[in-house]
Amino acid sequence: MSIVNVGTVAFDAIETPFGKTDKIVGGAATYISLAASFFHSPVKLVSVIGDDFDMEMLDKMKKIGIELEGLQIKKGEKSFFWSGKYHYDLNTRDTLVTELNVLEHFKPVLPESYKDCEYLMLGNLAPAVQMSVLDQLPKRPKLVVLDTMNFWMDIAMDDLKKVIARCDVLSINDEEARQLTGMYSLVSAANKILQMGPRYLIIKKGEHGALLFGENEMFYAPAMPLEQVVDPTGAGDTFAGGLLGYIASKDDISFENMKRAVIAGSALASFTVEKFGTQRLLEISPEMILGRMQKFQKLVQADL
Amino acid sequence: MSIVNVGTVAFDAIETPFGKTDKIVGGAATYISLAASFFHSPVKLVSVIGDDFDMEMLDKMKKIGIELEGLQIKKGEKSFFWSGKYHYDLNTRDTLVTELNVLEHFKPVLPESYKDCEYLMLGNLAPAVQMSVLDQLPKRPKLVVLDTMNFWMDIAMDDLKKVIARCDVLSINDEEARQLTGMYSLVSAANKILQMGPRYLIIKKGEHGALLFGENEMFYAPAMPLEQVVDPTGAGDTFAGGLLGYIASKDDISFENMKRAVIAGSALASFTVEKFGTQRLLEISPEMILGRMQKFQKLVQADL
Repeated sequence: MSIVNVGTVAFDAIETPFGKTDKIVGGAATYISLAASFFHSPVKLVSVIGDDFDMEMLDKMKKIGIELEGLQIKKGEKSFFWSGKYHYDLNTRDTLVTELNVLEHFKPVLPESYKDCEYLMLGNLAPAVQMSVLDQLPKRPKLVVLDTMNFWMDIAMDDLKKVIARCDVLSINDEEARQLTGMYSLVSAANKILQMGPRYLIIKKGEHGALLFGENEMFYAPAMPLEQVVDPTGAGDTFAGGLLGYIASKDDISFENMKRAVIAGSALASFTVEKFGTQRLLEISPEMILGRMQKFQKLVQADL
Repeated sequence: MSIVNVGTVAFDAIETPFGKTDKIVGGAATYISLAASFFHSPVKLVSVIGDDFDMEMLDKMKKIGIELEGLQIKKGEKSFFWSGKYHYDLNTRDTLVTELNVLEHFKPVLPESYKDCEYLMLGNLAPAVQMSVLDQLPKRPKLVVLDTMNFWMDIAMDDLKKVIARCDVLSINDEEARQLTGMYSLVSAANKILQMGPRYLIIKKGEHGALLFGENEMFYAPAMPLEQVVDPTGAGDTFAGGLLGYIASKDDISFENMKRAVIAGSALASFTVEKFGTQRLLEISPEMILGRMQKFQKLVQADL
């Protein structure tokens, strides 16, 4: 059983009402790999960095079972860098700097050892790049999870629809679901998206939780209300990684197990936001995650 | 066991992306009375209208067990009138017209037959008016539910804090909880509000559901994602009425029963928004409500 995770590994500089960081390790695929690794290893990473990257972080990743054969390190080039500042409510942010650097010409290449992939995470990249990954696989994975964003809907909708048709789980936020379908009701949007190909749709609603839709099925996992959120960066990616890791660990893609996976992802994401960057993900234990999952279950538990 | 419900009975004219109405019956206390009546009667109404009001509606209310002895009918005067237009997303609206009319000098008077009140709903009125109701009761009710809004925080915060100190359940929305406490985190805001007097706090989050806080306890009831929302007017009031009616019907103010009451309120509110005004509340049956409550429970149900 193997998870392959294709996406960005990067440097971030983040400012929130609670502080600011220098360049720290970020990138969607970083959060996804770390989160998935709590439930299943190996997670096989496909990404690209420059030789300016934090090599200690790579050692940490290897130690917890993340395989890096598919991680391209470009000599003399710089890693993808993003800098952003969150507003007071932490729900909105301004991007201050985006330097694509090595990401600009990134062509993911799957090593031979990755081609047994059963669970594939296609992180938020150009739809044509996501498609090229699917085309390198000799056999269709058991489950393909696709992340994307409004940017690709604006400039590459046709390509995006082709990739969506080939994925099993589409993971987007509420605004993106509305933009993709032109429908305001999330139920109507979900029905339309499920007709485009995916078996499941996950709509991420940030501090309001996540919705899971299957054919005639619906599940709502609220986010855990927290005393303090320090940095929301990577919460959605942590969610996706936790979700996929959990599914792979059970090797079960039923709706019932998807619900548990949504809770697993939500629990992990609720840790990520407690500190800056990946810091919290590097501290927590499997016991703490299980405890948090049980708290999520209790949060909504009522006997009628 | 009796419920006393003090608040506004009014005319509304509503425009949403799905249509518009002429003057129809509205007012928070109308929704609250209708909703509470599904679970418990009598509901004893305290409000004021002009003699222009829809007298057929009063007959309907009497028939379902709403007592109107405390409803003042001012001859030659006009009922409170509100007109509003909702934006595309239905989460925001513009007020087009507010004519206070009879409401301007409203002094609630509790008839003798209301003074056995055990469950009291203090609807959104000036805090001094809410206080005057509490002062008319010879004995403290078992439970006082208080609704208010940002307007009173702006102009009458001191009075408001005095009423809050005398209520058991404060029901406000997320922005109001933040304004009342100056805290962004809803958990922190809740802790602070519970120190101001109430035993429970309910934070209404509209389409994202409702949060219930007690001492060291928290419960999250998501709203039901719906295919079509036609008119959100009265959803929050329906929620509050369903909540109070449910609590009174069980005569149980434990946290466990409060959770069920939150689901009951959410279920009723999910009906209200399906049609304009009070129309849907006048159509549905107790069986439909129970069915919807079970749907709410299933929406979040997952076995870890």
